[in-house]
Amino acid sequence: MIVKALEWIGGIDGFLEIVDQRKLPADFVKLKCRDVETLFEAIKTLAVRGAPALGVCAAYGLVLSLQKSSDSDDPRRELEILSRYARYLASSRPTAVNLFWALERIQATAQKFVDDRPDATTKALRETILAEANAVCREDVDMCRRIGENGEKFINEGDGILTHCNAGALATAGQGTALSVLFEAHKNKKKFRVYACETRPLLQGARLTAWELKQAGIDVTIICDNMAGWMMKQSKINTVITGADRIAANGDTANKIGTYSLSILAREHGLPFYIAAPSSTFDLSIKSGKEILIEQRAAEEITQFARTQIAPPGVGACNPAFDVTEAGDITAIITEKGVIEKPDSGSILRLLNCGTNKQ
Amino acid sequence: MIVKALEWIGGIDGFLEIVDQRKLPADFVKLKCRDVETLFEAIKTLAVRGAPALGVCAAYGLVLSLQKSSDSDDPRRELEILSRYARYLASSRPTAVNLFWALERIQATAQKFVDDRPDATTKALRETILAEANAVCREDVDMCRRIGENGEKFINEGDGILTHCNAGALATAGQGTALSVLFEAHKNKKKFRVYACETRPLLQGARLTAWELKQAGIDVTIICDNMAGWMMKQSKINTVITGADRIAANGDTANKIGTYSLSILAREHGLPFYIAAPSSTFDLSIKSGKEILIEQRAAEEITQFARTQIAPPGVGACNPAFDVTEAGDITAIITEKGVIEKPDSGSILRLLNCGTNKQ
Repeated sequence: MIVKALEWIGGIDGFLEIVDQRKLPADFVKLKCRDVETLFEAIKTLAVRGAPALGVCAAYGLVLSLQKSSDSDDPRRELEILSRYARYLASSRPTAVNLFWALERIQATAQKFVDDRPDATTKALRETILAEANAVCREDVDMCRRIGENGEKFINEGDGILTHCNAGALATAGQGTALSVLFEAHKNKKKFRVYACETRPLLQGARLTAWELKQAGIDVTIICDNMAGWMMKQSKINTVITGADRIAANGDTANKIGTYSLSILAREHGLPFYIAAPSSTFDLSIKSGKEILIEQRAAEEITQFARTQIAPPGVGACNPAFDVTEAGDITAIITEKGVIEKPDSGSILRLLNCGTNKQ
Repeated sequence: MIVKALEWIGGIDGFLEIVDQRKLPADFVKLKCRDVETLFEAIKTLAVRGAPALGVCAAYGLVLSLQKSSDSDDPRRELEILSRYARYLASSRPTAVNLFWALERIQATAQKFVDDRPDATTKALRETILAEANAVCREDVDMCRRIGENGEKFINEGDGILTHCNAGALATAGQGTALSVLFEAHKNKKKFRVYACETRPLLQGARLTAWELKQAGIDVTIICDNMAGWMMKQSKINTVITGADRIAANGDTANKIGTYSLSILAREHGLPFYIAAPSSTFDLSIKSGKEILIEQRAAEEITQFARTQIAPPGVGACNPAFDVTEAGDITAIITEKGVIEKPDSGSILRLLNCGTNKQ
């Protein structure tokens, strides 16, 4: 069973149900978001996370924002409410590009609807918004599946596959990105073993990836991040696949800290290194990885664990959240539009603009 | 201030006092080992750890093993007791070559004493054994200081130095091996910054190395293991120095899991990679790293943290305690007898047998 990270239940008066990832893997609890404030809190406290999932959540958040309006309200006034709640939701995770993108898309749809049909009822507007949110969700589900289908050929019977952090169903509305490739291979009855890097400091690999893969009946073993090289040397791992947070025009890829080291280790051992990500992850305004700003997070994520101090008081930690893997060390970038082998500015532009690399 | 990891208190009826490293850095507690079983448990549960420290502990462990004998006992029977306890202590950490070495040394001394003086009292035998254990300890203190003096020249003003696990005073009877080099450089007023890999799963870097260095007034910052490559890429780290658990005749070096990956990453970034270890760490009976047996430890060290389950129930973890760094990736091995640059079978033999490389 592949977990569903989020689901809209009901019609325009429905609610958004999300898997509360703060409680995983100890407890599998679903959280019902019946108002924007609850959803805001869920996003802010990482009950739901992952760029594609946040986009879908934000879209449904705007559906929730109009539920208190009556049918007699003026649709133009509703647009103001939408705009206010969009600003509010955007402040929940200030670096989440997909979240801003989805909020803008829903607002643009609403604006166009009201411009085209100034006499429409609020109910009709709300139905239009829900339909658009459903479209955002459906597209995400399709995107995930296509990434899986496009990448599945890289998984071979008997493989030992390393993945880092969580690029799974829990990070999307569908079956994930990097993990989607594994789900498709599993569906096709290929037998393989996954090694999940625990992914310090927040342990998304040990907590989320291992849980998802186990739910889906895939053989998964956790390793500490520092074991990856040795497991490659021992031929236990022969393929690496991760997600991406942002990809520059030349293919340099920002992803969870540790990914860069894995790319070097994979090259050293002659192993393929795949990135699986939706085409929306490319940021063509950024020429190369050198321009990607790396978020520095709080030292306490490292010096404390589950509220226990593990480092000596007064000793600091350095906590970059991401690093940048060079395009030259990426065997292929797997997107919903197709696969970019040996990615560079030319091959990336061709796939994004013309789809000529479509496979 | 450089901490003292262990100390024998009293004469032949004395006890071994060790710093309980399971409690660091939260609490600085000393554990009194008054019998072999307590010491065995302390070694097994890592209250005391580090190859040289284990050698000294094992030597004193054999002093403890005869404390229940009466003076009227037959010294030849005492040799059997020694032999039985030596086997018992050797089983506490199956990869710890220093432990075996110290047990053999004490047994050989005891054997020689009984052969030379068949009529000697048990008390005289016990005094001989304590004197030999004290010699092992004293030699360890000297060894540490000399390693530091020999390696200090590799540390430059302004360096960013990466170290892994804990090869410090807490791992020896003296001022450590890799950290001894840093303590000597600090004594010589060189200014540098140390990055301590936290060293999953047991966090010896975050808990012990950071604590020791801070106690000694050295600038130290903790990083997660998966950050090392990225910090090298950012030129924050320009030198790597670690200890060793076992070195084969050709220079291949077993050390804490993660060291192998660091050696690859150091080479990739053109950085020197030093091993600091006593000459007793060499095991010339082992031709190359391929013959080194790697201890596999319990999955729970990874799947649980401070008694909190972090991994999904039923998901396993792979937990090799060590890995093997290839001699070709080691810039130099720093020993108490001198420095072996570009280590290979020839240069190692020359230093160990003739001391012609002595510096």
